[in-house]
Amino acid sequence: MSFEARDVAFEARTRESFGSQGFMRALGARISALAPGACELVLDFAEGLSQQDGFFHGGVIASLADVSGGYAAFSLLPPGRTNLTVEFKLSLLSPGVGRSLVAQATVLKPGRTLTVARSDVYSLADDGSRRLCATALATYMAVDAAA
Amino acid sequence: MSFEARDVAFEARTRESFGSQGFMRALGARISALAPGACELVLDFAEGLSQQDGFFHGGVIASLADVSGGYAAFSLLPPGRTNLTVEFKLSLLSPGVGRSLVAQATVLKPGRTLTVARSDVYSLADDGSRRLCATALATYMAVDAAA
Amino acid sequence: MSFEARDVAFEARTRESFGSQGFMRALGARISALAPGACELVLDFAEGLSQQDGFFHGGVIASLADVSGGYAAFSLLPPGRTNLTVEFKLSLLSPGVGRSLVAQATVLKPGRTLTVARSDVYSLADDGSRRLCATALATYMAVDAAA
Amino acid sequence: MSFEARDVAFEARTRESFGSQGFMRALGARISALAPGACELVLDFAEGLSQQDGFFHGGVIASLADVSGGYAAFSLLPPGRTNLTVEFKLSLLSPGVGRSLVAQATVLKPGRTLTVARSDVYSLADDGSRRLCATALATYMAVDAAA
Repeated sequence: MSFEARDVAFEARTRESFGSQGFMRALGARISALAPGACELVLDFAEGLSQQDGFFHGGVIASLADVSGGYAAFSLLPPGRTNLTVEFKLSLLSPGVGRSLVAQATVLKPGRTLTVARSDVYSLADDGSRRLCATALATYMAVDAAA
Repeated sequence: MSFEARDVAFEARTRESFGSQGFMRALGARISALAPGACELVLDFAEGLSQQDGFFHGGVIASLADVSGGYAAFSLLPPGRTNLTVEFKLSLLSPGVGRSLVAQATVLKPGRTLTVARSDVYSLADDGSRRLCATALATYMAVDAAA
Repeated sequence: MSFEARDVAFEARTRESFGSQGFMRALGARISALAPGACELVLDFAEGLSQQDGFFHGGVIASLADVSGGYAAFSLLPPGRTNLTVEFKLSLLSPGVGRSLVAQATVLKPGRTLTVARSDVYSLADDGSRRLCATALATYMAVDAAA
Repeated sequence: MSFEARDVAFEARTRESFGSQGFMRALGARISALAPGACELVLDFAEGLSQQDGFFHGGVIASLADVSGGYAAFSLLPPGRTNLTVEFKLSLLSPGVGRSLVAQATVLKPGRTLTVARSDVYSLADDGSRRLCATALATYMAVDAAA
């Protein structure tokens, strides 16, 4: 599906909002691609992102899924609006083994109030191969940015 | 519901596994209560845990919900077994405003292979009042600890 | 948690809406208890409700969970408003064996636009004992009844 | 993704299991396409499938999503095994308006014990156009058929 942004400045606004999330900075996540209704995040492995076996922690994977979906939805909002995560569901499909995670989110259904997005999180191995690590389905609610 | 541990050393084993999660250390989360089939985590606010409005990030809330449920389930495993998160669903009910988060998880249905747990995450205000911030429903799978 | 209805006629309005669902009539479900923010449904077994082993079908269990949560949320709406299911997640905890199902839903977080409810579905055996069969977490959106 | 069946008789076995679900017969659902790891169901509208506005009921949509995903997973099982729904999450994206529903499910991650599938449910209008009505993410567990 392809979408049209309702704010010509959507990219700057999305990157600014992402940049103001202390947690994304602390993790080291960055936006690697952005388009109306789509957002891709990348995160390199670090010890502070690990679970007990030394792989990417499920909470890190969930965070990337949620945030990538949130900014995919955010990219379609008109000026003056922002969004909140209402809920999400994550299924973990394979261990978060590898040097990086890539979360690719796309909007399934944009709405004035609610937007639903899907995010697929891949783990990248040292040899460059990638594997589907998790998939999420999330709902976001638009609110006034001032709120 | 009340459960009986199948491993007398469940508490030491649960704390050891939790302590080996680099991500929980990086967040600053700690186990504040533990019983067979139940686990409570606490996490104090820090700038590196924030979303764009300066509140606790949804990914942090999700991580606490997942991990508290995981160790509630883990506490019932026999020696030599550990568990993986299969999936979870989180509903965010109010903003993560406050000085701390407390996640309280209990097992709803223990099983040899799969265990389902619920986790309620509360935000604690400076005046000590608490508010339900999120609730999660999660599935965990037991596997051999060596695996 | 206890709630106050914003419509004194909430009970008549809830029962009328429920009664207009052809699917609930076809299943044979009925409202067995209703209070502001809470709804209980009962459904007796019939061959047309079964899965391949002769137990209550997961889709039937899901339907009761969704509808009980929906009317728990509906009971708190002001006159002129109705609601739609945005999403729900169901965890099946034990087989749907028995002569009846009882779904008990309560609102976790009421809202002007979105309401979150939990529903626990129990199976009742012939000897009257009951067992937790499934639990669901659902989100509902209020809309104008005319829409 | 493409999968290979581990049972040459997978199609007969899948159709036989589906045919033994009293609830699917009562709804009037039928398998319209089947391949290893994929299952499509079709269901025509009837008054007994409706919610309060006369559209397909969310419980019906959920049932098709769950069952199509379940048989997509079932189609990959070896002889002597069957599966149970562990959990699913459904997001409703547009009203179930139209003459038929079509649920298309594919396996995302097959496993010896757990299989995850996605199901997209479309509503078909009288003019033949189709619209994404709902999407689900589900987990199934393989068990011995005798169990």
